Amino acid sequence: MKKILLQLDCDSLPSVFDAVTAYDAGADIVLQYGNITKENVRDLVYGVMFTRGGDNLKFSAIFIGGSKVIEAAEILEIVKSTFFGNVRNSVMFDPSGCNTTAAAAVAKMTKECDVKGQKVVVLAGTGPVGQRAAAMFAMEGAKVFVTSRKLEKAKRSAEEIKAMFGLEANACAAFDDESTKEALDGAVAALCTGAPGVTLIGEELWKGHPTLRVLGDVNAVPPLGVEGMKSSFNGEVVEGKVLFGSMGIGGLKMRVHRACVAKLFEKNDIVYDAKSILEMAKELS
Amino acid sequence: MKKILLQLDCDSLPSVFDAVTAYDAGADIVLQYGNITKENVRDLVYGVMFTRGGDNLKFSAIFIGGSKVIEAAEILEIVKSTFFGNVRNSVMFDPSGCNTTAAAAVAKMTKECDVKGQKVVVLAGTGPVGQRAAAMFAMEGAKVFVTSRKLEKAKRSAEEIKAMFGLEANACAAFDDESTKEALDGAVAALCTGAPGVTLIGEELWKGHPTLRVLGDVNAVPPLGVEGMKSSFNGEVVEGKVLFGSMGIGGLKMRVHRACVAKLFEKNDIVYDAKSILEMAKELS
Amino acid sequence: MKKILLQLDCDSLPSVFDAVTAYDAGADIVLQYGNITKENVRDLVYGVMFTRGGDNLKFSAIFIGGSKVIEAAEILEIVKSTFFGNVRNSVMFDPSGCNTTAAAAVAKMTKECDVKGQKVVVLAGTGPVGQRAAAMFAMEGAKVFVTSRKLEKAKRSAEEIKAMFGLEANACAAFDDESTKEALDGAVAALCTGAPGVTLIGEELWKGHPTLRVLGDVNAVPPLGVEGMKSSFNGEVVEGKVLFGSMGIGGLKMRVHRACVAKLFEKNDIVYDAKSILEMAKELS
Repeated sequence: MKKILLQLDCDSLPSVFDAVTAYDAGADIVLQYGNITKENVRDLVYGVMFTRGGDNLKFSAIFIGGSKVIEAAEILEIVKSTFFGNVRNSVMFDPSGCNTTAAAAVAKMTKECDVKGQKVVVLAGTGPVGQRAAAMFAMEGAKVFVTSRKLEKAKRSAEEIKAMFGLEANACAAFDDESTKEALDGAVAALCTGAPGVTLIGEELWKGHPTLRVLGDVNAVPPLGVEGMKSSFNGEVVEGKVLFGSMGIGGLKMRVHRACVAKLFEKNDIVYDAKSILEMAKELS
Repeated sequence: MKKILLQLDCDSLPSVFDAVTAYDAGADIVLQYGNITKENVRDLVYGVMFTRGGDNLKFSAIFIGGSKVIEAAEILEIVKSTFFGNVRNSVMFDPSGCNTTAAAAVAKMTKECDVKGQKVVVLAGTGPVGQRAAAMFAMEGAKVFVTSRKLEKAKRSAEEIKAMFGLEANACAAFDDESTKEALDGAVAALCTGAPGVTLIGEELWKGHPTLRVLGDVNAVPPLGVEGMKSSFNGEVVEGKVLFGSMGIGGLKMRVHRACVAKLFEKNDIVYDAKSILEMAKELS
Repeated sequence: MKKILLQLDCDSLPSVFDAVTAYDAGADIVLQYGNITKENVRDLVYGVMFTRGGDNLKFSAIFIGGSKVIEAAEILEIVKSTFFGNVRNSVMFDPSGCNTTAAAAVAKMTKECDVKGQKVVVLAGTGPVGQRAAAMFAMEGAKVFVTSRKLEKAKRSAEEIKAMFGLEANACAAFDDESTKEALDGAVAALCTGAPGVTLIGEELWKGHPTLRVLGDVNAVPPLGVEGMKSSFNGEVVEGKVLFGSMGIGGLKMRVHRACVAKLFEKNDIVYDAKSILEMAKELS
């Protein structure tokens, strides 16, 4: 029986990236759907729920991707609420690669540095990757801070993290060297999840920092988020700090993405979201 | 050479159900197309007619599905008129599962009860499944009645059955116990094809009915169309009547759907519509 | 690793013809995308550039097809400009079959008649097939003339050929027997690329013509472009002239199309456009 992945995407053209990755993960067929809305998704889900019975349900799975993370999260809730009893299919949620990217960064960083009870800062932690990374650090027991240039925005992000994952995040503003220095005070780990081409941590801030042990940066477009970082860094030690750049993180991200898609077809009741994708990343890192 | 099924659907998002079922039936590739109209379908059909020559034409076939049955019927006519000479592909018509559902119900019921020359009633027989079931009972030689709450609507349905299939159907109103009792008077078989969750035949009407021998019900949402029916009934005998519920009918429906799709690729000139799908259902029942 | 072809189409429904042909050429998966615009194409291209690294890039390729040739040409430019360094995928450009049809005609005709330094006429050479055929004859060293009923239109076509391919084409009007006779004066080869069902060269013009040695006609709808031609002619000699009809040309066209798609997956930096598709046609003819 063919392994069929239903690709649900809120963009008008469903992601090529997600489809190719699904095939490389072992899906036999990807049914690509764009323009997914809260109104039209339920009938599509019925199409995988009611075509293959019993143990064969596991050969159909659902991937929720695309670039619109907030809309996609609503779709995930509807998909889960459409299932009943044993009539369900495994689902993976990774729009904009938010979960796999965050999980790869957090798995790599926490492997180098036990964050339990420690302060961790996610800089510009207001987007999908940053919020999920913050939640994942919290899952690992860290005292998490998200920053934004405006305190108000950081606070809103922390509230959203609380609402989405039920986990505490603290907020602080970081808009220049001084405020960033304060934000990093006492932290053991810092991850930059800001816009491409924007530096968030100057070199003099992290080199010789008394407590920082590991830095990550998902920004792939120079200048990078951490000054002095290289995209290719994958655990390189500079001035006593362990560094992970976007390509170092990206390699694990791709392996996590593929491994999760492959696993979807082993059971019919898996939900790969932040927590379970982090588990996969830790296993593979 | 890959077995390619062109899936034509008048909905904006083509049916997942139809695609998964096609793959399970043995199609190698399903080309999914939504938003099909009378204006855009011809070029798509040329795409299967002119890519594979001679005996290889049979490796490309067409499935017309989706939820919009009336529009789909117009598409079927255009598809058939696009073919010429030997340059044609096999086609299956089953939007809303109307043919496979009706055929499964009629095959199961007529196997239990010879309807030739007998009265058969299709209750709420005004939708795609009901009209096709009525036509199929007529093909088996029954004197068919379709009912609706309003006589006018039942008459219109009978006229449409005549226009679509060239077969006679009679009309009567059935809006309460008394009128339903009259409608069932002298009938050997009754099939409920009404809206989900609406009871059409009360328990006291069919238990101990002097002529009814078999009852079917495609309604899957409680309360069912036949009071006292269970969805899972698949030929169970209650008070001397043979009963078929939606799941009992649905199991055969799925096998008929898959068998027809599989057959499409054996020749290049098959048209699976009401009559030929009923033949398949009788063969498999 | 599966051979994945990204099918980009500016029509709202992507071509079935292109998809079936791609599968027959050996693609494992065709990702079909319609409604492609200059704005949305880049993200799709990233999806094949960034999913498979290094030597595996060759297992993803791009086909630009559909019926809108001018829009498609703009898409090709954007696709090529999206690649950088070694991060690129092979691409084939054949909307409306313009390159494969022109290449098949030119390969067949030039095999029968050396056109180097000779006059060749492409009648009604103002559309995508005619312009590409003219350019290809020029690539083979011919002195090319394109005709149209209005001189102005022929001149504009010649200018477009110059702009697109950097090759010289001459223009002349051909609107009746007399002007067509003048256009053909001294020519060794003539190809008709006009509208379906329109005769461009009367029988008395080519039979006994002092210099014409080969005639081609891509018009498949009677009356054909060359009076006395048959669609099935594939090198038949009539009155000393070698004739190629639409089916004779079409057979090679299909083989060229499939061979090019198959080749896309052998390297990651091939661009199949006019020149390279002509090379393939010459190799296969």
